[in-house]
Amino acid sequence: MDPRIEAHAEILVDWSARVEAGDDVVVSVGPDAHELAVAVAGALGERGANVHATYASGELGRAYQLAHDGDFDEDPDHELALYERADAVLFLDGGRNTSEGSDVPPETREAYSKARQGVREARLDTDWVKTVHPTRSLAQQANMSYAEYQEFAYDAILRDWEALAAEMAKMKEVLDDGSEVRLVKEDTDLTMSIEDRVAVNSAASVAYDSHNLPSGEVFTAPHATEGEVYFDVPMTIRGERVQDVRLTFEDGEVVDYSAAQNESVVGDILETDAGARRLGELGVGMNRGIDRFTDNVLFDEKMGDTVHLALGRAYGSNFPPDREDEANASAVHVDMITDVSEDSVLEVDGEVVQRDGTFRWEGGFDE
Amino acid sequence: MDPRIEAHAEILVDWSARVEAGDDVVVSVGPDAHELAVAVAGALGERGANVHATYASGELGRAYQLAHDGDFDEDPDHELALYERADAVLFLDGGRNTSEGSDVPPETREAYSKARQGVREARLDTDWVKTVHPTRSLAQQANMSYAEYQEFAYDAILRDWEALAAEMAKMKEVLDDGSEVRLVKEDTDLTMSIEDRVAVNSAASVAYDSHNLPSGEVFTAPHATEGEVYFDVPMTIRGERVQDVRLTFEDGEVVDYSAAQNESVVGDILETDAGARRLGELGVGMNRGIDRFTDNVLFDEKMGDTVHLALGRAYGSNFPPDREDEANASAVHVDMITDVSEDSVLEVDGEVVQRDGTFRWEGGFDE
Repeated sequence: MDPRIEAHAEILVDWSARVEAGDDVVVSVGPDAHELAVAVAGALGERGANVHATYASGELGRAYQLAHDGDFDEDPDHELALYERADAVLFLDGGRNTSEGSDVPPETREAYSKARQGVREARLDTDWVKTVHPTRSLAQQANMSYAEYQEFAYDAILRDWEALAAEMAKMKEVLDDGSEVRLVKEDTDLTMSIEDRVAVNSAASVAYDSHNLPSGEVFTAPHATEGEVYFDVPMTIRGERVQDVRLTFEDGEVVDYSAAQNESVVGDILETDAGARRLGELGVGMNRGIDRFTDNVLFDEKMGDTVHLALGRAYGSNFPPDREDEANASAVHVDMITDVSEDSVLEVDGEVVQRDGTFRWEGGFDE
Repeated sequence: MDPRIEAHAEILVDWSARVEAGDDVVVSVGPDAHELAVAVAGALGERGANVHATYASGELGRAYQLAHDGDFDEDPDHELALYERADAVLFLDGGRNTSEGSDVPPETREAYSKARQGVREARLDTDWVKTVHPTRSLAQQANMSYAEYQEFAYDAILRDWEALAAEMAKMKEVLDDGSEVRLVKEDTDLTMSIEDRVAVNSAASVAYDSHNLPSGEVFTAPHATEGEVYFDVPMTIRGERVQDVRLTFEDGEVVDYSAAQNESVVGDILETDAGARRLGELGVGMNRGIDRFTDNVLFDEKMGDTVHLALGRAYGSNFPPDREDEANASAVHVDMITDVSEDSVLEVDGEVVQRDGTFRWEGGFDE
């Protein structure tokens, strides 16, 4: 077996999910994630955990949902009972076609998703981790050869997570101690308040309340946004390629926008509800193993030397425990990414934190 | 999709498992049974059942068991809860290598199996059905091309089960009304008592207490066996090819045996325990869609115009409800098959039921 697959399994089980002997684990296996599943089963066996493997196939889901009359039973007993008793759920994504759900009517998908809300909540109540096995389908989506995509994915996944967590802790400290963030780059001068917010050190481990592998970002929930921002990293939003989005904020709300391609997608998002015109997230990408856009949000938003902002819903984890209801509410959460590796400055309370892709503690400039 | 796969799925869901709207169904998917799983998911969606798909991979199981220290936890909560709440479990077998478990020590396999006894019993307590998707691995095992093997498998599976059930009901009636069975063919003259036994019409449906698709046999539990029998259909027993087994019975017990190949395998079986020297089953194969030995017991023992006898454990279903404890007890149940298509006679209480592969009701001879 490719030693990278075994290393991936070890990180997933030990660093990310913190599995221990006797844990009841569900392993969700994508049809092309078989090899990773074998490695994960070995790692779980070695640790004395108990494994139940599920089959996560987009083709199965599509066939089931298309054939059903759409009046789905709520939270089937058997599946709910499984997840309610699970200690951890490991999602090994890896399908054969990222467009498999494209001909399922959105209302059918929504009805199914709504009927399984209890099952979903039970899953999120475990030490769950979502990761991905590099597949040919994802290589295609990234416009890369399979071998090159494997290198890319393992560069992102097989990191020294303890070291990265320590580095990200510095960024978290800066944000936790700060009141205002300012981002300046080409066509961008944006200020946001982060007063009374808690930054999350998303270090790819449940011990950090971080449930993605790879991860590698520090994020918070900004408000009172003012100014302009330009997103130069391409994105796929709702199946459409969106390029060169520009937003103008006043009093925390988007008052003007443009895009070089599929501008109407941005307009549709902003029209969703009041919360969609406000920011729900400011994230600082710090995973330098990810050095390019691959059209997969699991990787893209963690890219090193990028900053992303999300329109819409904020995460409760960015608020003090008794103030989670202050989080911006919206039906959407849409991430947009901007490159800060060159000709850019990120400041907190007037002090530079990152300049031209170099952080203060990396010594690239005077503190 | 190959229309045979869709027909297979329909028979499985409707005839075999009798799935209804609202049923909580577990679908166990072998790695190469994907296409059948998609068809089954569609059929279950159409009927309004709820689906949880599990991944049944020999490679996963091997990796897990080999890595584990062998002290397996008993009946993990999460998996037990799933099966305890399931209405039906559909096993879609279809691996990539029938020898995948060959390097797992038998004691490890036994320890794992023993630790999961409660889970297994919960599964057997549902409307479970075991079927198989024709795979390249099974074609290889049968020494056939893939296309030819598909034809073979669908000939066995896509039958008019209602008609076959009605025909098998005639055989069941003969056995239920009879006291003694006699089988006469080359090197064979065997008599068995079937007094106070109940024959099972194994018609590939839970409605007939039959849990295999394909099925197609009528079986009972003989005793007081006397005489000689010759098994001319080759078999694989404990991984070894066994040919031309001959057994001699006195007072219900094997007193002499021989085989042209791997005779010691037969000897080992007979040495297991006292019950291993007695018969646990007499089965009459009536699925004429199965016309050859393919080294897969799911098919072999249902072959039309064959009779099989099993050394060892008898099924409780062959006894009146309050007398199941009379069933022959043994750690083994080993089926051996003999061809009755030519130069053979099967009699019940002195009347011919089948001669040279033709049943009494098929009009091939004077009743």
